[in-house]
Amino acid sequence: MRRKAVRRAAFQGENGAFSHIAARKLLGIAIRTVPCESFAEVFRMLATDAVTDAVIPIENTLHGSIHENYDNLLRFQIPIRGETSVRISHQLIAVPGIKFRQVKEVYSHPVALNQCRRFFAKYPNIKPKSFYDTAGSVRMIVREKCGDAAAIASETAAEIYGGAILKRNVEDNRANFTRFFLLSKQEPARSARRGHWKTSLVFATTNKAGALFRALACFALRDIDLLKIESRPLTGKPWEYLFYLDIAGKSENAEVGHALAHLAEATTFFTLLGTYKQTP
Amino acid sequence: MRRKAVRRAAFQGENGAFSHIAARKLLGIAIRTVPCESFAEVFRMLATDAVTDAVIPIENTLHGSIHENYDNLLRFQIPIRGETSVRISHQLIAVPGIKFRQVKEVYSHPVALNQCRRFFAKYPNIKPKSFYDTAGSVRMIVREKCGDAAAIASETAAEIYGGAILKRNVEDNRANFTRFFLLSKQEPARSARRGHWKTSLVFATTNKAGALFRALACFALRDIDLLKIESRPLTGKPWEYLFYLDIAGKSENAEVGHALAHLAEATTFFTLLGTYKQTP
Repeated sequence: MRRKAVRRAAFQGENGAFSHIAARKLLGIAIRTVPCESFAEVFRMLATDAVTDAVIPIENTLHGSIHENYDNLLRFQIPIRGETSVRISHQLIAVPGIKFRQVKEVYSHPVALNQCRRFFAKYPNIKPKSFYDTAGSVRMIVREKCGDAAAIASETAAEIYGGAILKRNVEDNRANFTRFFLLSKQEPARSARRGHWKTSLVFATTNKAGALFRALACFALRDIDLLKIESRPLTGKPWEYLFYLDIAGKSENAEVGHALAHLAEATTFFTLLGTYKQTP
Repeated sequence: MRRKAVRRAAFQGENGAFSHIAARKLLGIAIRTVPCESFAEVFRMLATDAVTDAVIPIENTLHGSIHENYDNLLRFQIPIRGETSVRISHQLIAVPGIKFRQVKEVYSHPVALNQCRRFFAKYPNIKPKSFYDTAGSVRMIVREKCGDAAAIASETAAEIYGGAILKRNVEDNRANFTRFFLLSKQEPARSARRGHWKTSLVFATTNKAGALFRALACFALRDIDLLKIESRPLTGKPWEYLFYLDIAGKSENAEVGHALAHLAEATTFFTLLGTYKQTP
């Protein structure tokens, strides 16, 4: 019996980052993780076959689309194979045995600290301290055996680095979700069984009023649902745009295929980013 | 002669933040600045007349739209009166007299540090250190008279806190621009003379294939240019969306007025966010 190859998944951030949680949802728990410093590094690892899969954030309910990763998708041309969504919930984590009243400082990435203003307003004696990474701050306080400091990060970070959760869900806004894409040159071993198919694409139109309207006619005429649309100004080319589109349906479906052929005809640039199911 | 009232402009971040640079472009240098901790605080200051103006970032070429501020625009209903764009360029700043070879640590917000990876790769003996704010890091090193530390922030931050620029434009990507809105209950004293009018609006459609297509027909039929379009899923309502739209033209223009009346008819929700000119 041949041993099943272990999947190696790259993502930006330390082990325990929210991208790591998304990777577990998409690929299961038995993956080898390859933490990377930047999104570009994640894409390069995948392009050079140093990993089998990559997991990247693509948009967030508060902060919007991550254009940098749309740029990377266009540049590296590796297909989207899956999608999932993770709620960004922050836990207050300390070395096991430390009591909440001992905590004087809390380390985390300033974006995470900023998402927990109410917590710091409620406990004015606890000082927020900036750190380069959320999960990295848990690793640091556990390694240094901090007796008066805690960290703010995911539950997974607490589990990985052996921290204890002192307070759960210290974030101000519970409606904070990040959408992640799974990228791979191969079909994923474990793909979502349930869920609807989606197709993501990028196109550009001529610089004319009504050009986008004509492009969208390709889908409206076939009753194909639009799930996302976003324009992106082209740097250095005022009045010229890329459009990011998600539609309902699989690209191999005949109706969707006709719409895409029609769109390629109606646009000056067109790239299919992938067709995939959502992992709930 | 009546003294002209000084405008008080609120923005998120410390003096010297990129929002402060945008405020100077939009309102001139003779403003009183009111730095705020959060975007919500900026909006509250304006809603309660504690300030006359507010300047908020709305989108960035790398990081996309700031949904949180679209939410605030809808919640507080204060009109957009102007728009400008600022290039995010990072300067290495130290206490005057300090030489580059003395610098061992560089403080800044981790997002800014992350935008200067090439600088840190080139000088591996210089350690990046996370701080809660870019401009705040300049204030800190100048106050503490740091002899072996520098900060990464805007040129304006160096000027305000009396830092000296050791190296210019240490950012990796020069195509990093942020678009800012000027908000005010009154017309701004100093408005852009040149430039085209734009109108920003938000709407929602019924949950049907082709609903967006029908909404966009209001503009396509009148040859009105679309400058931005973005869908935003409604939290807790899958398959229902808000759409953010920027169109060319002034809302008082007859053609644009007809298009907006037509749109209000074709949509389930419609709000005009403002009509304004861009300050170059």
